[in-house]
Amino acid sequence: MADFDARVDELGITPPDYSVSAYPAAQYGLIRSHRIVGNVLFLAGNVPEMEDGSPLHPGRLGDEVTIEQGYEAARLAGTNALGSIKYALGTLNRVKAIVRSLNFVACIPEFTDVHKVASGTTDLFNEVFGDEVGVGCRATIGVTSLAASFCFETVVTVEIV
Amino acid sequence: MADFDARVDELGITPPDYSVSAYPAAQYGLIRSHRIVGNVLFLAGNVPEMEDGSPLHPGRLGDEVTIEQGYEAARLAGTNALGSIKYALGTLNRVKAIVRSLNFVACIPEFTDVHKVASGTTDLFNEVFGDEVGVGCRATIGVTSLAASFCFETVVTVEIV
Amino acid sequence: MADFDARVDELGITPPDYSVSAYPAAQYGLIRSHRIVGNVLFLAGNVPEMEDGSPLHPGRLGDEVTIEQGYEAARLAGTNALGSIKYALGTLNRVKAIVRSLNFVACIPEFTDVHKVASGTTDLFNEVFGDEVGVGCRATIGVTSLAASFCFETVVTVEIV
Repeated sequence: MADFDARVDELGITPPDYSVSAYPAAQYGLIRSHRIVGNVLFLAGNVPEMEDGSPLHPGRLGDEVTIEQGYEAARLAGTNALGSIKYALGTLNRVKAIVRSLNFVACIPEFTDVHKVASGTTDLFNEVFGDEVGVGCRATIGVTSLAASFCFETVVTVEIV
Repeated sequence: MADFDARVDELGITPPDYSVSAYPAAQYGLIRSHRIVGNVLFLAGNVPEMEDGSPLHPGRLGDEVTIEQGYEAARLAGTNALGSIKYALGTLNRVKAIVRSLNFVACIPEFTDVHKVASGTTDLFNEVFGDEVGVGCRATIGVTSLAASFCFETVVTVEIV
Repeated sequence: MADFDARVDELGITPPDYSVSAYPAAQYGLIRSHRIVGNVLFLAGNVPEMEDGSPLHPGRLGDEVTIEQGYEAARLAGTNALGSIKYALGTLNRVKAIVRSLNFVACIPEFTDVHKVASGTTDLFNEVFGDEVGVGCRATIGVTSLAASFCFETVVTVEIV
């Protein structure tokens, strides 16, 4: 059986520990980081929030945020999602499958490379969990704005054992 | 066991009765107000539609709709979601947990307080169901437009007993 | 028991066969066309991609795309969703219910007929599966942009037997 907790360490990825620091999105209203129903783990939206609570690369794609920065932001949002999973389950090893991610990219109307941004999240899941477990359904949507000028948000659903 | 039907009455909240009036969104195309799969209740999008079928505070945040109006609209959308839950289950007392809400706010690109609007829905759920049951995962997205100039729409998933 | 595979043939609808041609969205990053968890089939976003991989009616509603074209695009996205279902299950006959579709329409801020576009998908599901099975929950959101200038994307959840 794959040891995803070890894999994360090997990859040098450090998901936030929400059992120590409060789940940060709480500053944006009443929210729970996750809910478990049967063998499905529902996550709240994860954003590219840095440790100090500020957004990585705020703004809009096609304007002040480049694709490379957006990708990096999506990778951080995915890293925070890993933190939420670990907080929910105590370990990443109960992840059976990334089921689906809905990805939202703040952008100008002319920007149509939204999928290249969202790959920051999905590539990370692939690195950590491998293809069979880590690559799920996805959709990526270019949107008008996100809270606090975040440039990206991902809403992930996970199958667990 | 909490009596959420009584709580709604105490709070003076009056969810629409869709067993009497037709589920209103039907005017927007083929739609079902809800589906139940196992112990999960999926709701259609709920909007701030008033009893006469017209939108409360139509338009966009950052333009003609203020945050206070948007919050009020989101509270009405949440009230209509309560109506959908009651229509689906016959009672609110079968609600075990608000699992996740996806919240969409029609706004201009410069408006980044979308979460303050969505709290109109999530605060209502907290009042009715309390923190353990009523506070779920959430994500809020600023979007270009919604049907009929609604300024808000929420898509809610509920765990039931 | 309804034979939905035969119904599709009778209606002259020809969903793509993703067991022969690769699931096309793969060009937009790591993605799986579907995941099954228990009796729920989760689909990735389906877009109005034509056989040659190019978008049908690219652009935005309210600008270069008319409602009729948007509806047609949504019907193609729905047809591709049928292809995804068939690829996942081998047959449409295991569909018990269309549970919910989240529909995204690329549009200008003044365009508020997003629901008329999304009906291209939901009308198709109704034709194929009938009202009881084929009409599910839905929400439709007007958004800034989609990958590769697609004008529409639908994210569908299905109950299966």
